Amino acid sequence: MFPRSWKAVIFLATIPRALALWPVPRTLTTGSSFVVLSPTFKITVNVPNPPQDLLSAVSQTKTYLETDKLQRLVVGRGASDAGSLKTAAVLPSLTLTLQNALPVLPISVEAVKDVASRSEGYTLSIPSDGKPAVLSANSTLGLLRGLTTFSQFWYDLNGVTYTNVGPVSIVKDVPAYPYRGFMLDTARNFFPVADIKRTLDAMSWVKINTFHWHIVDSQSFPLSLPDFPELAQKGAYSASEVYSPADVQDIVSYAAARGIDVLMEIDTPGHTAIIATSHPELVACNQASPWSTFANEPPAGQLRLASPAAVNFTANLFTAAAKVLPGKYFSTGGDELNTACYAQDAVTQADLKKSGQTLEQALNVFTKTTHDALAAVGKTPVVWEEMVLEHNLTLSNNTLVMVWISSANAAAVAAKNFRFVHGPSDYFYLDCGAGEWIGNNPSGNSWCDPFKTWQKSYTFDPLANLTAAQAHLVLGGQQLLWSEQSDAQNIDSIVWPRAATSAEIFWTGAKLPSGAALSGTEALPRLHELRYRMVQRGVRAIAIQPQWCALRPSLCNIDS
Amino acid sequence: MFPRSWKAVIFLATIPRALALWPVPRTLTTGSSFVVLSPTFKITVNVPNPPQDLLSAVSQTKTYLETDKLQRLVVGRGASDAGSLKTAAVLPSLTLTLQNALPVLPISVEAVKDVASRSEGYTLSIPSDGKPAVLSANSTLGLLRGLTTFSQFWYDLNGVTYTNVGPVSIVKDVPAYPYRGFMLDTARNFFPVADIKRTLDAMSWVKINTFHWHIVDSQSFPLSLPDFPELAQKGAYSASEVYSPADVQDIVSYAAARGIDVLMEIDTPGHTAIIATSHPELVACNQASPWSTFANEPPAGQLRLASPAAVNFTANLFTAAAKVLPGKYFSTGGDELNTACYAQDAVTQADLKKSGQTLEQALNVFTKTTHDALAAVGKTPVVWEEMVLEHNLTLSNNTLVMVWISSANAAAVAAKNFRFVHGPSDYFYLDCGAGEWIGNNPSGNSWCDPFKTWQKSYTFDPLANLTAAQAHLVLGGQQLLWSEQSDAQNIDSIVWPRAATSAEIFWTGAKLPSGAALSGTEALPRLHELRYRMVQRGVRAIAIQPQWCALRPSLCNIDS
Repeated sequence: MFPRSWKAVIFLATIPRALALWPVPRTLTTGSSFVVLSPTFKITVNVPNPPQDLLSAVSQTKTYLETDKLQRLVVGRGASDAGSLKTAAVLPSLTLTLQNALPVLPISVEAVKDVASRSEGYTLSIPSDGKPAVLSANSTLGLLRGLTTFSQFWYDLNGVTYTNVGPVSIVKDVPAYPYRGFMLDTARNFFPVADIKRTLDAMSWVKINTFHWHIVDSQSFPLSLPDFPELAQKGAYSASEVYSPADVQDIVSYAAARGIDVLMEIDTPGHTAIIATSHPELVACNQASPWSTFANEPPAGQLRLASPAAVNFTANLFTAAAKVLPGKYFSTGGDELNTACYAQDAVTQADLKKSGQTLEQALNVFTKTTHDALAAVGKTPVVWEEMVLEHNLTLSNNTLVMVWISSANAAAVAAKNFRFVHGPSDYFYLDCGAGEWIGNNPSGNSWCDPFKTWQKSYTFDPLANLTAAQAHLVLGGQQLLWSEQSDAQNIDSIVWPRAATSAEIFWTGAKLPSGAALSGTEALPRLHELRYRMVQRGVRAIAIQPQWCALRPSLCNIDS
Repeated sequence: MFPRSWKAVIFLATIPRALALWPVPRTLTTGSSFVVLSPTFKITVNVPNPPQDLLSAVSQTKTYLETDKLQRLVVGRGASDAGSLKTAAVLPSLTLTLQNALPVLPISVEAVKDVASRSEGYTLSIPSDGKPAVLSANSTLGLLRGLTTFSQFWYDLNGVTYTNVGPVSIVKDVPAYPYRGFMLDTARNFFPVADIKRTLDAMSWVKINTFHWHIVDSQSFPLSLPDFPELAQKGAYSASEVYSPADVQDIVSYAAARGIDVLMEIDTPGHTAIIATSHPELVACNQASPWSTFANEPPAGQLRLASPAAVNFTANLFTAAAKVLPGKYFSTGGDELNTACYAQDAVTQADLKKSGQTLEQALNVFTKTTHDALAAVGKTPVVWEEMVLEHNLTLSNNTLVMVWISSANAAAVAAKNFRFVHGPSDYFYLDCGAGEWIGNNPSGNSWCDPFKTWQKSYTFDPLANLTAAQAHLVLGGQQLLWSEQSDAQNIDSIVWPRAATSAEIFWTGAKLPSGAALSGTEALPRLHELRYRMVQRGVRAIAIQPQWCALRPSLCNIDS
């Protein structure tokens, strides 16, 4: 009497059968045969002197194959597959080989090369005739990416591990953009090392390759540096809410072994009030009231950028933090500089008068000096967009710019010929929509309302408003978590699975293997798969729909 | 140069010193003396033949005192208290006594009495001269409430458990409103029993006394009933996502021992599509397309309310579910009835023709018959507001109405002289603001945007737009979690601490013990305390501000 429209039935038939892959490979051919993983399934590493982190990645992959136990997201959860599994081909093994890769370098070395020169591609075949699967790449990092893809094919039914899309062929899956990141603010609230590691695991599952670590801010300074122990001693929330040098190395190593580079940020000259706890002479308008005159959020306080002592301190601080990091980039921040703070700061005014500089000229000296210090230890500076859009500074051509205020600002950054990363608040801010957190403001909403759904984020176009000649300036993109209302209690649920959307946009690029444009309608069932698999692996990713919808692709679409 | 404004300093001095209490008692006198809990601290139960659940509550309270280990939320986390603790009075014990309570009934019996006749009041004193604390009440339920209050006074510093607000006197703290609830939808997504129990624990910490369990809906039927086994067998998401009869009894018992009554809801005649999996003949427009014509969300499907078989089925279903519940209320639902579904349903049209009824007349028969069935097993029916505002039905005068569409509708319900519970979407819906979940709708926002912050919820006035003569109709209020985008992964973080705001509004009432009106500014530091204590007890309540703000009451207010 009310038949399902044929539209939905037809749509179902055109959904790629490899529902479980995220991000979708650039090339992909799948069949419709069942393939069962042998109870004695082996992963053979045909690599001379395989690095330890590659062996660990192989071991982790085997663990996931054994413990994911993800049932298919269909009504009946795959029970109807039982018959097919009895006659399915059995996959005995996966063989890993390296091509053109002498010397063989660890994943952790490959992962921290300059982002533009990393080798993340791989080729994977999963036969459905009982022959071994083969994964090949030009680097151990590429092998890691291929292992990640391999691990996403498998379902469980009554203890049998299987896929229903054999044979599979992926030829030279390489990312569309080299930078695919996630930013975490660990200063508004603190995140224990274990929670960061779990987040790095989840990042690796979607091939995110950069952890942008906004480690300090005006509220706390959890970074403990041997050269500047006082900053964390006085500026961390407590002695137990500190990243020791060993913690930082632990996180850097853990990330690198998962193909992730750590891009640390020490935001300056704004967002530095907490430095006043140990160096009050370096900070203007510390906790000045009303805070809203002097800062975008409490507490107010900015480094006295016109003070030679503050410039010197900052240069040394950057050097101290950056020198122990293997990556090639280091972020110096530069957002939301408040000029009212300096206008009323007698020390800054005296410094400016003494040097005969304007505030902008002093900012130029501050920036050049501190960036030069980073260059001296081999780092390329990264800045927020204001540094190129709101200030007229002398910046190195290779400076990397983070777009955040609006997606509309990417074109302006490109017009200045800087390479940049997309992190626009109107698409990629994970904290938006959670309401006002400033006290005594009951009717206030989030400044960047509404909540950025995965569907909205997924519509982001990396090349919007750019010329073809500017396309090469887009290094990639990332989603970001500012932590005014987040800490370890909700990091999983506010980040996942949403942060996977940019991971796919910047890996898969504009088009699916079929040639069709990326579409949220196509992506929805795959994102369910990813989410349910994340939960199986212990990451508290949120449900994005009722399970009824997850089991019935397309039936909860707006037009179905 | 930028002094903190005096305003902020003065404000700090007026914050009640008992920061840790939530909800604030109706009467409260505190001092400024430190009191240390004796290492041999005892809770003495001066109650004849104390019920087992009272002894369990005492034991649980002792466990919290020993394991909360909450440091004070001030800069230094209470380190400066060390000197005061050396000379502080030592509290040897807490004595519990019952007044006017013969026979002594278990908490679990007191908790499920008619909500209007429960005895939740208590009197508590905590001397600061080394004498025992005393807690008295007229019922074991009152003693439980007092124990809950007692447990919120204590901080930890280096293993010493102490308060800084002795002596304390609370005389006859009784709730302003009898119904203080929390609603959970376990049908859009499933919640394991353990997660519900943890939620019940957290509810009890803020003296919430009703668990409104929206147990089934169109998407799944996880309720397994001995008389209707087919409903869950065919309608649950899977065999492991079912509440067995034993699970229901487990939850009911667990709740009752914590002073919480279970108000179960089987939403009818709408929101019942899933019943078609086992009784297709009873359901109109099952999964009809487009769903948006026939339902507010997918899948469409409603009980054929004009069918005598469906009426009989529903009456028997209510009886089967309600007869094993100790509480006095049972919700029959009644929201979002879709008339287009019935207009196009040939069976319904034939039924109406046969009986000579309009749809509204048939709805009246459906409602009367099913409500009478509940009355026959001693239950009072509860309905959503449409049943009194949008339909002209013959309802028993004692029917309890849930206001949900808008806070503005409370007055209309009151005008019809029904008792009601406030659960308006514009203040109390916890799911709002998380964005559109319907697929293929990338620009869609939450229908009830924006996110309801605790600050917004806390401004709710239970008596707004009501006459003094109508005030008695307000039974209380509750916050609600619809679970389209929630399950066990994020229940804690989406519910807490926000759901505590209604708990305080409806316990404390319009005024604080000082006589001042409730104010978010006053409440903020206490809500931080509650949230941090919840985290210490294993509930993943979210951070509501940066920790910098939590440690500095008022300094993150909009005007500070």
